[in-house]
Amino acid sequence: MTSNEFFPTAPDDTRTEILEATYRALREHGYDALTIQKIGEEFDKSTSLLYHHYEGKDDLLVDFLDYMLERLEDDIPFETVDDPKGALETVLDHALAPSMEDEREEFARAMNELRSQATHDPAYREAFTRHDRFFHDRLTAILREGIDQGDFREVDPDRLAALLQATFNGAMTQRVTSDSEEREVSVEDVRAELEAVLETYLLEDTGE
Amino acid sequence: MTSNEFFPTAPDDTRTEILEATYRALREHGYDALTIQKIGEEFDKSTSLLYHHYEGKDDLLVDFLDYMLERLEDDIPFETVDDPKGALETVLDHALAPSMEDEREEFARAMNELRSQATHDPAYREAFTRHDRFFHDRLTAILREGIDQGDFREVDPDRLAALLQATFNGAMTQRVTSDSEEREVSVEDVRAELEAVLETYLLEDTGE
Repeated sequence: MTSNEFFPTAPDDTRTEILEATYRALREHGYDALTIQKIGEEFDKSTSLLYHHYEGKDDLLVDFLDYMLERLEDDIPFETVDDPKGALETVLDHALAPSMEDEREEFARAMNELRSQATHDPAYREAFTRHDRFFHDRLTAILREGIDQGDFREVDPDRLAALLQATFNGAMTQRVTSDSEEREVSVEDVRAELEAVLETYLLEDTGE
Repeated sequence: MTSNEFFPTAPDDTRTEILEATYRALREHGYDALTIQKIGEEFDKSTSLLYHHYEGKDDLLVDFLDYMLERLEDDIPFETVDDPKGALETVLDHALAPSMEDEREEFARAMNELRSQATHDPAYREAFTRHDRFFHDRLTAILREGIDQGDFREVDPDRLAALLQATFNGAMTQRVTSDSEEREVSVEDVRAELEAVLETYLLEDTGE
């Protein structure tokens, strides 16, 4: 998840320019220390423009979350899952990567802080519920297609998607809030064990 | 997880009195809005005593986390797992309860906020790493005993414990940061699917 993934070209409107500045400031400072002023320092135009567009830091950050989701929705087509096994593997590679580039790790830390705002702020709660729903639906579509094609066993795709999503969210939380040298919070272990579980639960007896 | 679980009798020393006041204030206000002053309002003695014992809010909260872990360690014996299947079921009942009392949910929200501090504060990071290690070791002991007794298949107990822990952490995160009416973030689905997975992966072919 590099800057270029979300902001591929020179931004062509003020909102996108603001949100790209927000992305940089959020990675650098984290949620707690973030201020509109610090976002302004990453922004080429006047900081006063930020106040013109947004009521405050949280208003801006919720719009930022919406923008990130829109980009994901554009990038990941729902209609077609040609290769369900490959698609599931890609999801695992992304959600349980053994290591992350610094930029992506900084971003994951900031997203953890933003998600924590959802414990008491309904706007964040709505945004993360939409995020969860998007990934849940994406996972369910992959599983359903794999069942239809005979690649996967006849599991309940909705329920397995819920289990996978909880696992991904927990592994990411542990990754950014625990000491990484701890074997017990190792994302590698989670990935290896999940592969073993899916081999038994999802793939066996499908005639391959 | 009621107040009585952690603070069963009248506190018998100033530290415990302070930490019980912290528990109440944290549930009521959450991390962001919490101040030493608000903890003082829950405290029978002078607020100045809080400043005498702690350098500030975060110093106090990290001690609070350590205290909670000490209590858990006292309550859950490690030496003996007489009934591994029953013990695993108890862990699932606790970690993936279909609903929580208000008090426990308020506490879970506050713990999510505290955990988020670990993204940028090493003291919180150490505390949550210790928490994770405790639960990981507890889960591993249950799985190992079940394998030894022939109740469970010959899985890697360390790795499966890591997977279960990530799942529990993610389900709890989603519970306190998503709209609960969403089927896709339903803890009931995660629990039901995890039971189905463990039936296939951990229990089948153990001769029962």
